[in-house]
Amino acid sequence: MLDAVNSIRLDLFEVLAEDLLARIGRLRTRDGKTAETPLFLPVINPVSQEITAAWIKENLGGEAVITNAYIIYKRLRAEALEKGVHGILGFDGIIMTDSGGYQVLEYGDVDVTPEEIANLQEDMESDIAVPLDIPTGISGKKEAEKTVEKTLVNLRKTLEVLEKRGKRKSLWTAPIQGGVHLDLLRRCASEEREMGFDLFALGSPTPLMEGYRFDKLFKMISAVRPIIGFGKPLHLFGAGHPMIFPFIVALGVDMFDSASYYLYAKDDRYMTETGTIRVDKLDYLPCDCPVCSKTTAKELKEMSKEERTRMLAIHNLHVCYREIRRVKQAIKDGRLMDLLELRARAHPNLYQGFIEIMKNRNLLELMEKHTPISSRRGMNLYDEISMKRPKAASARKRLIQNVLSGRKIQKVLLIPETLKISFEKAARLPEQVDVLYYGSPFGLVPLSLRYSYPFSQTNYPRALIERKTEELIEEISEILKRAGCKVAYLVKARSSYLKVFEEKLASKLKEKEIKVEEIIDVREMIGKTGSLNGSTL
Amino acid sequence: MLDAVNSIRLDLFEVLAEDLLARIGRLRTRDGKTAETPLFLPVINPVSQEITAAWIKENLGGEAVITNAYIIYKRLRAEALEKGVHGILGFDGIIMTDSGGYQVLEYGDVDVTPEEIANLQEDMESDIAVPLDIPTGISGKKEAEKTVEKTLVNLRKTLEVLEKRGKRKSLWTAPIQGGVHLDLLRRCASEEREMGFDLFALGSPTPLMEGYRFDKLFKMISAVRPIIGFGKPLHLFGAGHPMIFPFIVALGVDMFDSASYYLYAKDDRYMTETGTIRVDKLDYLPCDCPVCSKTTAKELKEMSKEERTRMLAIHNLHVCYREIRRVKQAIKDGRLMDLLELRARAHPNLYQGFIEIMKNRNLLELMEKHTPISSRRGMNLYDEISMKRPKAASARKRLIQNVLSGRKIQKVLLIPETLKISFEKAARLPEQVDVLYYGSPFGLVPLSLRYSYPFSQTNYPRALIERKTEELIEEISEILKRAGCKVAYLVKARSSYLKVFEEKLASKLKEKEIKVEEIIDVREMIGKTGSLNGSTL
Repeated sequence: MLDAVNSIRLDLFEVLAEDLLARIGRLRTRDGKTAETPLFLPVINPVSQEITAAWIKENLGGEAVITNAYIIYKRLRAEALEKGVHGILGFDGIIMTDSGGYQVLEYGDVDVTPEEIANLQEDMESDIAVPLDIPTGISGKKEAEKTVEKTLVNLRKTLEVLEKRGKRKSLWTAPIQGGVHLDLLRRCASEEREMGFDLFALGSPTPLMEGYRFDKLFKMISAVRPIIGFGKPLHLFGAGHPMIFPFIVALGVDMFDSASYYLYAKDDRYMTETGTIRVDKLDYLPCDCPVCSKTTAKELKEMSKEERTRMLAIHNLHVCYREIRRVKQAIKDGRLMDLLELRARAHPNLYQGFIEIMKNRNLLELMEKHTPISSRRGMNLYDEISMKRPKAASARKRLIQNVLSGRKIQKVLLIPETLKISFEKAARLPEQVDVLYYGSPFGLVPLSLRYSYPFSQTNYPRALIERKTEELIEEISEILKRAGCKVAYLVKARSSYLKVFEEKLASKLKEKEIKVEEIIDVREMIGKTGSLNGSTL
Repeated sequence: MLDAVNSIRLDLFEVLAEDLLARIGRLRTRDGKTAETPLFLPVINPVSQEITAAWIKENLGGEAVITNAYIIYKRLRAEALEKGVHGILGFDGIIMTDSGGYQVLEYGDVDVTPEEIANLQEDMESDIAVPLDIPTGISGKKEAEKTVEKTLVNLRKTLEVLEKRGKRKSLWTAPIQGGVHLDLLRRCASEEREMGFDLFALGSPTPLMEGYRFDKLFKMISAVRPIIGFGKPLHLFGAGHPMIFPFIVALGVDMFDSASYYLYAKDDRYMTETGTIRVDKLDYLPCDCPVCSKTTAKELKEMSKEERTRMLAIHNLHVCYREIRRVKQAIKDGRLMDLLELRARAHPNLYQGFIEIMKNRNLLELMEKHTPISSRRGMNLYDEISMKRPKAASARKRLIQNVLSGRKIQKVLLIPETLKISFEKAARLPEQVDVLYYGSPFGLVPLSLRYSYPFSQTNYPRALIERKTEELIEEISEILKRAGCKVAYLVKARSSYLKVFEEKLASKLKEKEIKVEEIIDVREMIGKTGSLNGSTL
């Protein structure tokens, strides 16, 4: 969008930082309100407004909320037309309005047309509007197909209304339906891609969340994310629980709404970023939010139901916003994958979903494209699954493709990864000797890259090397063999786990007919030849 | 200790709940102050008192602090003798006083005798006192042996002073030295066991913590924990960072002190329960403590150094206390192992430490003895390592030893774990058929136990079953073979991962010459025989 007066480009959505498919972005409404993504939009019931949007803004810095256009249509239409949706909620931040699709799902039908609901949303100046969609929920293929077709029909009707009206007040969302049927989701997303909507929203079937079928949800997101492209934001309807926030954001969800903070509270459920605890099983409050730092578990249990519900809702909101901040910090640090590995142990079903993400090669390759090669904080690796991370995989790929493959190596000095050797010292090594490090999870690392990202900024447990010893040794000896290597000067390792590695490496090299000279100290090597030239790698 | 008037037994330490080697306990001082363990004691410098003990009590509910008797001896002796240590700190909670051992470590020696420091601590009415010990730090075996000997000499001198004085004001601590030399630690702990101290304290070498050598620290704790017995509390000196709290508590540490909250703050380091972030790399504050909920990362960076140090110290304290509450909640829930699995992914070196805990069979067996068989919340399993948990291992052991081994089984009905079947339905099965479930990580589970803890309260990812399929099938078929089973009615599974399991199970049973009849529905089975009697298992 081009601002006519200032000729400044005012994008609806600007990406500020990326990690995996996550991004920190800036969303801009048509009248210039902005919010940072990933953006959490708490659901506000327009009638009861148990916790108001203004309260959330003041106490939690919330920049956006979502409310329901259908309920407003049924119960507050006159007021909405007079005061606008911002008047109804008493909120000057970003208001998204859902269309009533959820009510279709719950009650089978709604007595409003797509045209009426579109007009209302524009008339009451919703910042972000949603056409009347027909959620798929959990249904068989046939039924699901119908919901997609009906949704697409409604989208076209909505666009007609908008064209007739001319200038738009709202950003308009294309809801992607199809439920767990990935082919339908893809078809729906493809159809919608060129329709001219401002953002996309994936309908997530509530039963999946309630049944902790996170793997299915993650697959749904992954199915649509590449189709709609990365220029526009993707919203997820009903994101439910903070324990999934890092995952859905890593898969490319930029915005999501949830009423869970309140529904859980009504049901006496206390959210944490790693799960839910029923209030009657709470002995300590593992949180420092304004509720928890002024209340004990005992006091919480003894409150009136009404007061407890409010306190729990506020606590639950704090947990949601806190987790968003943690996710954002992880994106900035290039450490979102670290957070996923951690959060995957919040529940076995999250672990299952995580495992499937890490098995999805197309997805990992796409993540690799969007993940900066380097980041300001180091990488933490744990096990074989960690090695599949885009950043670890791309570092290994670059090493092998750009540095090691096709290279001719006559003689090689192999130094254990744990040994520090200065460039100065290395420069005094015989020139015909290539210097490579062994014993890191990346395989062979040349001296020239030893101190560049991620090779020196990676932490890993020795258990990882122990488990991968055979594999790494096979790879190392194969690379040296192919490079035509005749002699390997093998510097002995000191730490016990690398000693084992080194001994096995020596035998394997001999097996491949590479002469091995074991040396205790690099100085020995320098003394041996007296050459002053640097290594060639 | 027996209260003379009321004849109520007033124990120094009472265990209220256990999980692994962790316990929630009540510590009672000689004058009747109490505190709940696991107990975190922030270090208060008696001279500067940057954050006061009273402030910590009021704002964080801190029940106990630790300060330094040697510094008081050097700089505030007269005041201490007049007002007592509680007067100096202006605190009516529990005050532990360290002896100056740390200063010995830092400066080589101190100009005070064990007798003087013992007398001072009694005179100023420390609640918990520590004899002048000689910390081992990181040193070679010879040097370490000397520190142990000197410490033991000092302990004896201290006991002589106490005997001479008669009635004690303080609880007295036996510091266990030996550093990373486990045999020395064990020897020191054995010597001290019968000396009549009220609690024990392990000296943890600061460089281990600074170098993240958590595996070594965990081994030190595990070395002494069984020797000193479980009747008295174990303190850990200098516990450093909240990310290790769940682990040290799980290994049986009841109390620990740390100055890190302040040292980190001075160094602009922001603690989280999963690591540390330098303030200059903070863009968001992933915390809701009173500091973080009123401040942004930007504001924190722009504060004066002095103000920022105070704010960071307060935040760091909140993180420490919060993690203690989380650990306590996990103990009550019987879910401390879940927390360890989660926190093991906070840093690769914690993961390495965790792996080594899970490889230590003696330790796991000891944990099994102290872990209740059942708990109020279910168990979450992730991978092969999870299966080694005391509770999972003991459930499997009980199944095999008490239920399956030695049993005669003629005919068996094998039902997939995911299928729900009512007792009523099961009661209509032919009486000569034993009913067992297949496809859970526990192996074969009899109908009679299917709905008892932990078999129905365990969550696990299907990846775990997929990885263990061969092993579980081998075990199942071996058990049935030995039981003399002739016919297996195998109820077909519906979920795809169990279908694979069931097919492989069928072939394996046939291989072992057990006749397999595949059936689609349990009703079929009932129809087939028409018998009305219950299963024998």
